[in-house]
Amino acid sequence: MHKITLLIHCKDQPGIIASVTNFMALNNGNIVYIDQHVDREQNIFFMRLECEFNSSAFSIESFKELFKNALVDKFNLKWRMYLADRKPRMALFVSKYDHCLYDILGRYNSGELNLEIPFILSNHNDLEPIAKSFKIPFFHVPVAKATKQKAEFKQLELLESHKVDFIVLARYMQIVSNLLIDKFPNKIINIHHSFLPAFVGAKPYHSAYKRGVKIIGATSHYITEELDAGPIIEQDVAHVSHSYSIKDLIAKGRDLEKIVLSNAIKLHANRKVMVFNNKTVIFS
Amino acid sequence: MHKITLLIHCKDQPGIIASVTNFMALNNGNIVYIDQHVDREQNIFFMRLECEFNSSAFSIESFKELFKNALVDKFNLKWRMYLADRKPRMALFVSKYDHCLYDILGRYNSGELNLEIPFILSNHNDLEPIAKSFKIPFFHVPVAKATKQKAEFKQLELLESHKVDFIVLARYMQIVSNLLIDKFPNKIINIHHSFLPAFVGAKPYHSAYKRGVKIIGATSHYITEELDAGPIIEQDVAHVSHSYSIKDLIAKGRDLEKIVLSNAIKLHANRKVMVFNNKTVIFS
Amino acid sequence: MHKITLLIHCKDQPGIIASVTNFMALNNGNIVYIDQHVDREQNIFFMRLECEFNSSAFSIESFKELFKNALVDKFNLKWRMYLADRKPRMALFVSKYDHCLYDILGRYNSGELNLEIPFILSNHNDLEPIAKSFKIPFFHVPVAKATKQKAEFKQLELLESHKVDFIVLARYMQIVSNLLIDKFPNKIINIHHSFLPAFVGAKPYHSAYKRGVKIIGATSHYITEELDAGPIIEQDVAHVSHSYSIKDLIAKGRDLEKIVLSNAIKLHANRKVMVFNNKTVIFS
Amino acid sequence: MHKITLLIHCKDQPGIIASVTNFMALNNGNIVYIDQHVDREQNIFFMRLECEFNSSAFSIESFKELFKNALVDKFNLKWRMYLADRKPRMALFVSKYDHCLYDILGRYNSGELNLEIPFILSNHNDLEPIAKSFKIPFFHVPVAKATKQKAEFKQLELLESHKVDFIVLARYMQIVSNLLIDKFPNKIINIHHSFLPAFVGAKPYHSAYKRGVKIIGATSHYITEELDAGPIIEQDVAHVSHSYSIKDLIAKGRDLEKIVLSNAIKLHANRKVMVFNNKTVIFS
Repeated sequence: MHKITLLIHCKDQPGIIASVTNFMALNNGNIVYIDQHVDREQNIFFMRLECEFNSSAFSIESFKELFKNALVDKFNLKWRMYLADRKPRMALFVSKYDHCLYDILGRYNSGELNLEIPFILSNHNDLEPIAKSFKIPFFHVPVAKATKQKAEFKQLELLESHKVDFIVLARYMQIVSNLLIDKFPNKIINIHHSFLPAFVGAKPYHSAYKRGVKIIGATSHYITEELDAGPIIEQDVAHVSHSYSIKDLIAKGRDLEKIVLSNAIKLHANRKVMVFNNKTVIFS
Repeated sequence: MHKITLLIHCKDQPGIIASVTNFMALNNGNIVYIDQHVDREQNIFFMRLECEFNSSAFSIESFKELFKNALVDKFNLKWRMYLADRKPRMALFVSKYDHCLYDILGRYNSGELNLEIPFILSNHNDLEPIAKSFKIPFFHVPVAKATKQKAEFKQLELLESHKVDFIVLARYMQIVSNLLIDKFPNKIINIHHSFLPAFVGAKPYHSAYKRGVKIIGATSHYITEELDAGPIIEQDVAHVSHSYSIKDLIAKGRDLEKIVLSNAIKLHANRKVMVFNNKTVIFS
Repeated sequence: MHKITLLIHCKDQPGIIASVTNFMALNNGNIVYIDQHVDREQNIFFMRLECEFNSSAFSIESFKELFKNALVDKFNLKWRMYLADRKPRMALFVSKYDHCLYDILGRYNSGELNLEIPFILSNHNDLEPIAKSFKIPFFHVPVAKATKQKAEFKQLELLESHKVDFIVLARYMQIVSNLLIDKFPNKIINIHHSFLPAFVGAKPYHSAYKRGVKIIGATSHYITEELDAGPIIEQDVAHVSHSYSIKDLIAKGRDLEKIVLSNAIKLHANRKVMVFNNKTVIFS
Repeated sequence: MHKITLLIHCKDQPGIIASVTNFMALNNGNIVYIDQHVDREQNIFFMRLECEFNSSAFSIESFKELFKNALVDKFNLKWRMYLADRKPRMALFVSKYDHCLYDILGRYNSGELNLEIPFILSNHNDLEPIAKSFKIPFFHVPVAKATKQKAEFKQLELLESHKVDFIVLARYMQIVSNLLIDKFPNKIINIHHSFLPAFVGAKPYHSAYKRGVKIIGATSHYITEELDAGPIIEQDVAHVSHSYSIKDLIAKGRDLEKIVLSNAIKLHANRKVMVFNNKTVIFS
């Protein structure tokens, strides 16, 4: 049996759902999941659909061709189609903090994550022993002002040679340049340690302390050119009090960061996220 | 324009989604919402669908007939179909506590609730002034051991003469008998002041205090024969500490109770709840 | 029996706790609550203490004098002392939204709030019937550009003649001027409908919608000269999704606003809030 | 400088706070933290206090003696006194699940936990590689029906020879016998994967699924003779929906379990927990 996941969006218009579901039925597909969303402000229709095919002769390439001819032009669809058993490949970028890394690798080990991790990359080598203990290749690519561009070419080369589908910045403490962003649009996931859009930029826990907030947060988002302004995938918060020092805020925040980032990874890896106009639609 | 909401469930089987969406398209309907759920343990398929029809000649009765002939027998469907502009009618049962009542009537007044309130009924008359200030009919139906059955007949009579669709027990402090439950299956919504199934029965805040829990909860559920064991619609919780007296727990709990009950009312009134085997499916 | 609440802050220094507790014991007081906080960044000591005196001859004025002579100069204390049975008097300012008003008055009616409400004031008269149904005096003080200053003098006059201790802006849709702020420093409580410091200013739900956040919030804070930048008393949040329209965000936000504001009122009325350097210390 | 933490409880009575704070002042101590709680139902007074002493000649043994003579008999105090720089020693018991173990060891490594881990013990050897990668001694003590008592003597021997102060059952899948409970009263911390008292016993996620709850929880508590009925230290919850399979509940629950258990460990290790009558007082 083969299972596909289809994501589409287009201008909202009558008949899309019926046409797509009908197309699947005519091609002997059994729809096992369907969900849709209409953005009424922008008049855009979004749909996510999972469909099973029993035929052993099923070919994703031919089926994509069929789908294209039947529906894509008719409705002017933007679309992506995946074979469910093809796991996406995720590169992990880290620096010196290990809490997100441990959390992700623990889940990976226990089979909770539906993805492959071809390698871990860092601008430092502090976390290499952790990579080793989980038996995942580790690349040390130092980044200094003078060598930044060279480092990025090295990164790109590794990403391409390992057929990486998306990148996760697990507290990677370097600004990612447009070179990577353009190659991986809405495919680089960052964890920012504040409740965005509050406390954009560096040292958000210090700013939170200064402002005297009663709740801190963490935000996972796709990287775009503008700092901390990309589409938000997941957010969570925790209550704090006046008795929290900056150090306490940082410790409490670590728990948020790792859970929020891991949730965002799962949503992305399971193809449940669509991006439109710098916002996400998150399917259930 | 007319809009219908359709809820169906049946044994899971291939082709249902395509058949239903196709049927709507053939009848010139435009599907504006579709969501489905498959209970894999019990192999049951659930679907909620909203569909718009432009024809001024649209008749819900004829359309129901068409739907029945085309699909109901074929898939052995259990189904309900509503006209969206027909607001459900909700009777409010209260006793002496007023916090849920104020919350519901405040929302009702502000247009947040998509329903009619034909009357408020109570076994006491303490809350009559509130009903009056909101200009809603109030019936005082005292309940004593000897007169309990007579009171219930009176209740039934009021419910029928006012064409009530569902009942909300907004901290109504009487056990509802099978007479009402049978007439309103999965249509009587209760708010229980604990995180069910913890602390079933009377005085849950006292039990929570005794056990020393760090979180209290509230649960809205449909009334069934077994006490506090009906299908759960909505739950929420709040953190508490050793410093909370029973009185403090009760005060904190009031905030939970009113929000949880109002949310359950909205879900039910918007036809987003399906019940199967004593559990709910809640559509978004 | 008499009970006092004492709030002090000063430069952190050894011996304060022992000196104060000792002073209470020497004066036949029984401490029933003590809590303290040290702000290590600014080296400031905060303390809240409740103490009971059995003597029927106890006079708060004499006791204040005693305390002042014994300790205030020695430790250079900033301090406030209250008789617990003297309820603070709170003026409610509203405009047209009623959800916070209903919530506050419902709690007031049920005895949950330890305060007096001498009057409700509004720049509109839409909510006068609600005030009437709760039997609380209502003053309509319209505010237009030309009459703004006159209106504020009228407000001040009412506040003074009714011996108001603090003001609550329950979705009052006017900027409060420095005239009032100077008379009621850290005594005007506002509810802002966002998770501050995100979305300062007007229409925060519209901004939240545009940014695509996954969580919305509400913040209760003291009014200071700078808009939405005063000391934060209480915050809470709720999860939302892409499926929420602006209208949905507003409806969901109303529940946050009323709970957060009522909690802030309770903290203030129970003298559990201290303000220092634009931040609050909230005692348990 | 030396810092002590003092925990006391006794029948509530006037003058305790003043007497204790005075005693500290007379002995040249500077109180840097004080918090108290009165259980009004049982009339019990609880206090936690931290006090610093500058004298290099300070001896905890002599000071305990002084305290005992001055105050313990007078107020009939139950008390414990610790030197802050003496880290408690925690033994970790595990079976096959690794998520709590990774979480604890990640925090331990990053310096977040104020404790020593002399060893990890398991009835299986699956997790030995993790212990090794963190360079912590690992003991494999198999438990079978016939050998259970022998295993427990082995456990006791290890606990004693390693001077263990408290035990954490990080998803250790064996019932701990009275032999250990008696030796470590309120010193064995368990994580139960439900919101107690709901779903006591085995397979709580299966029970939660069956009941159709909308929220799942995790509870950390001290082990007592009665299963899952010991004093609750910490609880947390997460929202779930009808779409969660049992497997999904288990995955979501893992995040709760690890955070709740780690929080409980921190509270215990920082001597912030007092137990009385099967309930906890948790100081801030």
